Amino acid sequence: MVRRNPKHVTIVGVGLLGGSIGLALKAQYPDIVVAGVGRRQKSLDEALAIGAIDTAHFDAAQPAARSDLIILATPVGAFARYLSDIAGVLKRGALVTDVGSTKATVVRTASSILGPDGPFVGSHPMAGSEQKGPTFAQADLFAGECCIVTPTARTPASLVKAAEKLWRDMGMKTVQMTPAAHDRSLARVSHLPHVVAGLLMMLPETADLEVSASGFLDTTRLASGDPEMWRDILMTNRKAMLAAVDKLDENLMVLRDLLDASDAKGIERFLANAKKRRDTTIGYTAPD
Amino acid sequence: MVRRNPKHVTIVGVGLLGGSIGLALKAQYPDIVVAGVGRRQKSLDEALAIGAIDTAHFDAAQPAARSDLIILATPVGAFARYLSDIAGVLKRGALVTDVGSTKATVVRTASSILGPDGPFVGSHPMAGSEQKGPTFAQADLFAGECCIVTPTARTPASLVKAAEKLWRDMGMKTVQMTPAAHDRSLARVSHLPHVVAGLLMMLPETADLEVSASGFLDTTRLASGDPEMWRDILMTNRKAMLAAVDKLDENLMVLRDLLDASDAKGIERFLANAKKRRDTTIGYTAPD
Repeated sequence: MVRRNPKHVTIVGVGLLGGSIGLALKAQYPDIVVAGVGRRQKSLDEALAIGAIDTAHFDAAQPAARSDLIILATPVGAFARYLSDIAGVLKRGALVTDVGSTKATVVRTASSILGPDGPFVGSHPMAGSEQKGPTFAQADLFAGECCIVTPTARTPASLVKAAEKLWRDMGMKTVQMTPAAHDRSLARVSHLPHVVAGLLMMLPETADLEVSASGFLDTTRLASGDPEMWRDILMTNRKAMLAAVDKLDENLMVLRDLLDASDAKGIERFLANAKKRRDTTIGYTAPD
Repeated sequence: MVRRNPKHVTIVGVGLLGGSIGLALKAQYPDIVVAGVGRRQKSLDEALAIGAIDTAHFDAAQPAARSDLIILATPVGAFARYLSDIAGVLKRGALVTDVGSTKATVVRTASSILGPDGPFVGSHPMAGSEQKGPTFAQADLFAGECCIVTPTARTPASLVKAAEKLWRDMGMKTVQMTPAAHDRSLARVSHLPHVVAGLLMMLPETADLEVSASGFLDTTRLASGDPEMWRDILMTNRKAMLAAVDKLDENLMVLRDLLDASDAKGIERFLANAKKRRDTTIGYTAPD
């Protein structure tokens, strides 16, 4: 299977992530040919201009037929369409993977379109920013960050190894999780924080914002993310999100009761517990 | 009244803020004498060592009797005790102010102890960090930041001017708000975000934290704040906090309904609205 370095790759979606993957692959494998697929001429032209892709296409099937590696880097809501486009043309031994922020729905969709025994392996390289578009692409966007690879019980080991090699070649650490475990964890450490950042933006009026400071901007940073991308993330992780929202609401009501009862000791216990957890978390999380 | 530069100042509480005020005052007024009041010898010794204070005291009354400026920089829960200690000894024309993050309770307490016509004027210099203690003090901690001054209808104009001059001399912009308006605004842009950062820390288990990234760390940064200080902030701003918590909960339930109903359009509208608000807010808020 695909243990050699890829020679021809198709990147579907040439935004910040797709563009950065193109730059990273070309830095790593000097002879690789990168085909970029996009909806808009402007993004494709920008990706060509920065050297992230070698050829530009509106249609995925034509370059995918020549590729030993296909990476989906659009919002996850568009995956089904592109997977259907390439399903009939894939080369034997090709690897198909993605950069989507949710995995259970994505892996289920890919299995039903391409087959449960491959050639799809779900990936979630955890890198990015609030910036959008190929002009912000960087060859080292992924270096030092973590990529979660989400095989199923049916995924051939050789495909999993190929996917892990791909991300490691870009300088990432890789960990394996099941699609469901991935989605549950990410709901807690990424998708719920995103939603909460948005909710915190809805309360202040203009006069309040004029006395806001860096703490408010940091806490709400995620709210500047791309609405279309995040709509798809939330829509494809509804079950884990509903569970996370309910748990947050339960804890919020406990805190409300402490405030309502003027329970200074209880409030301090909550704050000390949260501080201890966060100070510990810094040890788990790689600095930027 | 106190329109000349202060010659002798007492800072009650020589932590990050008190220590930084000492350094800033000494940089601004080379001949000033700064007395530091604290509970612990260690903090006082550190404040002396970095040159933030000239003399160290456990008792506030003695240095306050000589001071034309007294600044309370302990957690707000300790203000009443120190105000009572200094109430009988203050010089004619002295200004008493503070750095507390809530104002209605503080101003009410100070008015009842020192009198409604002065010499207390509430202040909230919006600077700081999660770091604690005088060793992190910096002379320029306040430069470029905003200080909210909260006079009441009874506060003499000359005292308000003196308080504004003090913070402006440290390089701050000043704005005036009523104590109640201050507390309502800060509940929305600071105190609720702090609580929410803490609540977001309570959901993930260790396995989840191992795949957390910079987005999670940023959103929860405030949770690393000092529990004792924040207990006092929440306890002295209960009414505005309860209103903010209820509004957040209402919005959280609207979002839950959108998820539950698979309302992709509604979710995207929420995300786009939050993004627009935050991107606009960056324009309101001074960069660090």
